[in-house]
Amino acid sequence: MIATPQTLHFDAPLPLSSGAQLPAFELVYETYGQLNAARSNAVLVCHALNASHHVAGRHADAAGQPIPKSEGWWDNLIGPGKPIDTERWFVVGVNNLGSCFGSTGPTHPNPATGQPWGADFPVVTVEDWVNAQARLLDALGIEQLAAVVGGSLGGMQALSWTLQYPQRVRHAVVIASAPNLTAENIAFNEVARRAIVTDPDFHGGHYLRHGTKPRRGLRIARMIGHITYLSDDVMNEKFGRRLQALSELSDAAAAATQDGALDALERLAYRYSTQEVEFQIESYLRHQGNKFSDYFDANTYLLITRALDYFDPARDYDGHLSAALARTEARFLLISFSTDWRFAPARSREIVKALLDNKRDVSYAEIDAPHGHDAFLLDDARYHAAVRSYFEQQIAPAVGLGSAPETERGAP
Amino acid sequence: MIATPQTLHFDAPLPLSSGAQLPAFELVYETYGQLNAARSNAVLVCHALNASHHVAGRHADAAGQPIPKSEGWWDNLIGPGKPIDTERWFVVGVNNLGSCFGSTGPTHPNPATGQPWGADFPVVTVEDWVNAQARLLDALGIEQLAAVVGGSLGGMQALSWTLQYPQRVRHAVVIASAPNLTAENIAFNEVARRAIVTDPDFHGGHYLRHGTKPRRGLRIARMIGHITYLSDDVMNEKFGRRLQALSELSDAAAAATQDGALDALERLAYRYSTQEVEFQIESYLRHQGNKFSDYFDANTYLLITRALDYFDPARDYDGHLSAALARTEARFLLISFSTDWRFAPARSREIVKALLDNKRDVSYAEIDAPHGHDAFLLDDARYHAAVRSYFEQQIAPAVGLGSAPETERGAP
Repeated sequence: MIATPQTLHFDAPLPLSSGAQLPAFELVYETYGQLNAARSNAVLVCHALNASHHVAGRHADAAGQPIPKSEGWWDNLIGPGKPIDTERWFVVGVNNLGSCFGSTGPTHPNPATGQPWGADFPVVTVEDWVNAQARLLDALGIEQLAAVVGGSLGGMQALSWTLQYPQRVRHAVVIASAPNLTAENIAFNEVARRAIVTDPDFHGGHYLRHGTKPRRGLRIARMIGHITYLSDDVMNEKFGRRLQALSELSDAAAAATQDGALDALERLAYRYSTQEVEFQIESYLRHQGNKFSDYFDANTYLLITRALDYFDPARDYDGHLSAALARTEARFLLISFSTDWRFAPARSREIVKALLDNKRDVSYAEIDAPHGHDAFLLDDARYHAAVRSYFEQQIAPAVGLGSAPETERGAP
Repeated sequence: MIATPQTLHFDAPLPLSSGAQLPAFELVYETYGQLNAARSNAVLVCHALNASHHVAGRHADAAGQPIPKSEGWWDNLIGPGKPIDTERWFVVGVNNLGSCFGSTGPTHPNPATGQPWGADFPVVTVEDWVNAQARLLDALGIEQLAAVVGGSLGGMQALSWTLQYPQRVRHAVVIASAPNLTAENIAFNEVARRAIVTDPDFHGGHYLRHGTKPRRGLRIARMIGHITYLSDDVMNEKFGRRLQALSELSDAAAAATQDGALDALERLAYRYSTQEVEFQIESYLRHQGNKFSDYFDANTYLLITRALDYFDPARDYDGHLSAALARTEARFLLISFSTDWRFAPARSREIVKALLDNKRDVSYAEIDAPHGHDAFLLDDARYHAAVRSYFEQQIAPAVGLGSAPETERGAP
């Protein structure tokens, strides 16, 4: 499946939660599948921290050929024949305001100055993103969504859709998410932000004017993030206490060690260094940090982590989530993962309970998966079966799409 | 109780795990109580990351008066009449090599150059520290310890004592510790180290020559550390999602809000800023980071976290902890805390199991405490009762001290 990013320009100012407004803005989006005549099969996918509108499929090169490894971030879940089947659903991926992947954000020119917004880009919230997404749907002629789907911060947007536009959402699929951040969640975000802001190359957020970027800070921020995305168990399994020296062996040396010399090497190979890589987990984290600092914008990182911090629909109801969710009209699928300590299953159960308090129609799956928060991006059979089943058994009949195609139902 | 730091100089070179050696060194230590005639009542206390030889009591000013707030880091546990009662025990606190609190470390002159060691200070391990501590005991005329006690990294030293000098340790009290670090533990250490090493003021570890120090990196390192010392629960209880604006209210304003206006303020007070403090947890972390960057040395931080990473007594036994602990002769008290996710109870139970495999005499207490890893430093009644009871019921009779004094036993 070839995915083609598109851009829409919006001239009407967007009022923001902060009281500021964005004078005009652009949204970059992709769509997969066809909107049906009844316009009843639209599915909006909301993205999390470092993702984008490029949800599924591959991009094409100038000759129209798919670019290797250009798959969208949720390509294992969304596409022809996949759990969210683009042969049946019209799926929309949209890049959020403040991002660095195309939609209006801090690297774009501030119309008031002609210079990049940088740190002057207004603080945006989950609610602001949802309002912008609603304008996109207006432009695409979609009055009501069959479903809004998101994981992590994307799940917060899905939940917020059911509060801001209750009549425009038939179903919300909220995966690995939470009704707000805990103090510990905020703490991790804050350390990451401080690493960026105190990097001498940050220049108060106007680093582009100085022809630089706060790479050190971005690296640290990403390393912290990665630790919280993985479970302790999966880190022990993938890396354990294995030394980097082992992965630097040539293949021949590695083969030669199969007689037991490897054990000896493993014992003897401490480098006794505080600054060199000693353990494989260190190499992995440094690599992730370096990669991230190449492609991500620091101001975007600040904005997106702040949007996470601020999201708290119960806040206007003295902390009573049940009261906050009383105005929802959608049906819900909640999914959490057993080893996710960033957004633990208990946080999803808070949402489930608050919805049940309001007698809403809720399905909930707690998937026993070892991968921590990252699990929502991975191809887990039980997880994907839960999503497929919900789309085919609950959403499709509700929006008049009928049962699943024969090839799906009839599989032995 | 007045505590007086003392310094001992050692001329004989200390061979290190890395193969390097420290040509000569000094250890700073404090003692509390009196060594008895049989020299059987000595208790060594090993310190963790940012602590020192100043375990208990207060320091005195020039006039001999106790300095307010100068209590040692374990003063709630150790002192006259306390769980480790200095009226019965001769307690020794010693600052580890590589520290920045007096014993030979990176801020001291390298005899080869006359300049501060800085990043050239040799990497030291838990085993090296124990060897240096053994020299101190030699100098103090202590052949055998009634007990060696430590929490966290200090617990690793206590465990290592029972392996390196099995006949010199009667009892080991290992609190909130682990037989080695997990990949996740190493990962947190590594991010902290990278924050320090990539701070432009680090200058490859020779920042003293440049008249500066990597404060930004130290702040980030400490903030990360603090998150891992606390439990999610205690962070939610102490800070939750409360706004900094609330704590900045004058007392009068705070009183005025008791009629309900506080709720309104709590709803309205978002600052919508990515760089200012918004939540109280952020203020707390920044404060802790600032304080730490004032008094701690960056090279010491690197050395101590590396000592944590490297500790792994099972490593020479193909990962079999039971085999590694076969040469212990001490009796053990292990204590863990239910909400400690840095060194979880399961890690203490690994040690307990390996000791039981060797038919060692082990007591184990898992304390249900909300405070996370920090609990080992706090005054928890059940925790302190377990330590008191072990010292009075197990250690005292074993070393010929008899039962507890009347005042302790006879308390109603």
